[in-house]
Amino acid sequence: MARTPEAFKKNQDIDAYVRHEVTEIDLSDRRVRVENLDTGKEWWEPFDQLMVATGAVALRPPIENIDAEGIYGITTLKSGMIFKGVVDREKPRRGVVIGGGYIGLEMAEAMLMRGMEVSLVEMAPEVMGTLDPDIGAIVSQSLIDHKVDLYREEALTGIEVKNGKVTAVITENRVLPADIVVLGTGVRPNSDLAKAAGIPVGVRDGIIVNERQQTEIEGVWSAGDCVQTHHLISKKPFYVALGTVANKQGMVAGINIGGDDAVFPGAIGTAITKFMETEISRTGLSQKEIEDLGWEFITGKVKTRNKPGYYPGAAEITVKIHAEKGSGKLLGGQIVGKQESGKRIDTIATCLHAGFTVEQMVFLDLSYAPPFSPVWDPVAVAARKAVKEI
Amino acid sequence: MARTPEAFKKNQDIDAYVRHEVTEIDLSDRRVRVENLDTGKEWWEPFDQLMVATGAVALRPPIENIDAEGIYGITTLKSGMIFKGVVDREKPRRGVVIGGGYIGLEMAEAMLMRGMEVSLVEMAPEVMGTLDPDIGAIVSQSLIDHKVDLYREEALTGIEVKNGKVTAVITENRVLPADIVVLGTGVRPNSDLAKAAGIPVGVRDGIIVNERQQTEIEGVWSAGDCVQTHHLISKKPFYVALGTVANKQGMVAGINIGGDDAVFPGAIGTAITKFMETEISRTGLSQKEIEDLGWEFITGKVKTRNKPGYYPGAAEITVKIHAEKGSGKLLGGQIVGKQESGKRIDTIATCLHAGFTVEQMVFLDLSYAPPFSPVWDPVAVAARKAVKEI
Repeated sequence: MARTPEAFKKNQDIDAYVRHEVTEIDLSDRRVRVENLDTGKEWWEPFDQLMVATGAVALRPPIENIDAEGIYGITTLKSGMIFKGVVDREKPRRGVVIGGGYIGLEMAEAMLMRGMEVSLVEMAPEVMGTLDPDIGAIVSQSLIDHKVDLYREEALTGIEVKNGKVTAVITENRVLPADIVVLGTGVRPNSDLAKAAGIPVGVRDGIIVNERQQTEIEGVWSAGDCVQTHHLISKKPFYVALGTVANKQGMVAGINIGGDDAVFPGAIGTAITKFMETEISRTGLSQKEIEDLGWEFITGKVKTRNKPGYYPGAAEITVKIHAEKGSGKLLGGQIVGKQESGKRIDTIATCLHAGFTVEQMVFLDLSYAPPFSPVWDPVAVAARKAVKEI
Repeated sequence: MARTPEAFKKNQDIDAYVRHEVTEIDLSDRRVRVENLDTGKEWWEPFDQLMVATGAVALRPPIENIDAEGIYGITTLKSGMIFKGVVDREKPRRGVVIGGGYIGLEMAEAMLMRGMEVSLVEMAPEVMGTLDPDIGAIVSQSLIDHKVDLYREEALTGIEVKNGKVTAVITENRVLPADIVVLGTGVRPNSDLAKAAGIPVGVRDGIIVNERQQTEIEGVWSAGDCVQTHHLISKKPFYVALGTVANKQGMVAGINIGGDDAVFPGAIGTAITKFMETEISRTGLSQKEIEDLGWEFITGKVKTRNKPGYYPGAAEITVKIHAEKGSGKLLGGQIVGKQESGKRIDTIATCLHAGFTVEQMVFLDLSYAPPFSPVWDPVAVAARKAVKEI
């Protein structure tokens, strides 16, 4: 009845049910309803400990024809392979991307690399809404430089279809002919099943877990894109759908379910992506997130080079950091730059974990040699600028 | 009498004496003896505040003919330009490098890039003595892979000269014909003048300064390669000749001399370099430095890739960290890897500043996307390995 993949069989006494779906969680009798997707057979499977790791689902704008042929959401390896297959086979000429976030930008790049004409529609004033608008503007410009037809502050209003297949994307201002459409409109926790069972959910319906990844129900655990996560800077729960956080949470849940004791302290929203040669990264709180908390803050921003100007390959980098007014305690940072810029966000992320002030950041003993960095690392220069604003 | 460069003239009321040398410091009468190197004229210049920023001097092995023509120490921009001029003009075929530290490796690379045959002689078992031997061995292998004739555990014993010009380098075991020789044998504080005046010196004759960069003499300040520096991990003074530390110390000294108040908290010995495509970085204490302190420690070491294996350009990276036995408090780290590996040392450096344990490092919210890193950053993987040893 249960099909056990080889990887599980080899080392563990695990029944791994593939092509099966849990259709209901029964908390009072501590059992789940399982359906075999091939045979349709259903049964109740009892549990002592239950791990809910249902991940996220792509958000689809509530628009007619959004499920038409030729419209793709990219959320799983499989959905990416399907998309690639269609592009290879049908050789679409015009691709339209809805949404300028991580997935939108990566898919725009992928289509450009295959010689397609790419349009991108973004509701906000700039792409990359997790960045401050002035930093997002640098990314928007990079899209324009690479001949993406970028339409900002335009909402998707309709989809034109012929024989069930998309032919155009309609926005408030225009009709964009489309051979293929990518939805980069974000995800939400796939928590419907848990919610229906009575497992409490919080921010954006993310399952509420404690620092041991236990839900509010004894013996029921959850981790990853289906839970809400503790934000170490805002000290509030937030929703983040990233592999880094999911991985750590999964490890912690596994340790605890196994009877040992582990704690996931929380996350700070560190993320990185690239569009062509432009690297984009962020951590902690953005300007808007700080404003929403009602905190007073200062900012240090520098546009410089990531290596000494005389060194071959020195490239533009912009670093922006926010800190608490008065104390100077770091709240967040953003980086946009060319090659070898993005990963520097890890220094800012580590400073956030440490609770450093911008003054402490100035005196970090960071690495320098001309092939790698100016003698004052751009991160420290941004901190020096912020110090002046305290 | 005094020649003032334009850069100083423009904004400041500064007399800048170029081609002048201070030959004596008189602390009791608070004056310095200045000599005009062009005219030979000497006089006493009084001071209220004195800044000693005399830097470092290259160490020359005490060997006959070490000052022969064709033997170069590379310590200043000017010495590098002279060397380059000689190489361009005389087109030497065989270069020998004495010492496998930062300068030795960089000069070996520079000569290889110009098509020369390069030999390198190193007294220790591996090059890069600031790394643990197992990490240094990876760098040694990289030299060998690039056809450097590498002779380890061999001391320089002599120099062969013809008409005052070097013809060969003699070691314990062999004679290496040489058209040109580079000394990469390190530097020492250029503190003779200060020492002669009675300004107290410490480690390796580095001038002793407090955290405001003041020497033990009121109104006499010092910073950079001529001072000893407080090590934030060992809590002991050490000697480090790096631009990053010098720059920060100079800034602090300047602020304090100007009547304001600033503190240089100390350094942790972060450094980075590259040899061809191999990036090399270190921070904090090495195994030998920890052993010299008599501290018990644990180690986490991982050889992995700096990006997911499936991503184009994924390259080998080795990360090694040391932590205090029992507490797990981080003591130091080293990285050797191909492109986009070295700068990750900044994450480890920031963790050292923060006083993090390896357990805290595991849960750092570091950035991940396939073009940049595996979902578990190699730094966090090394920390996970170390956690198991606590």
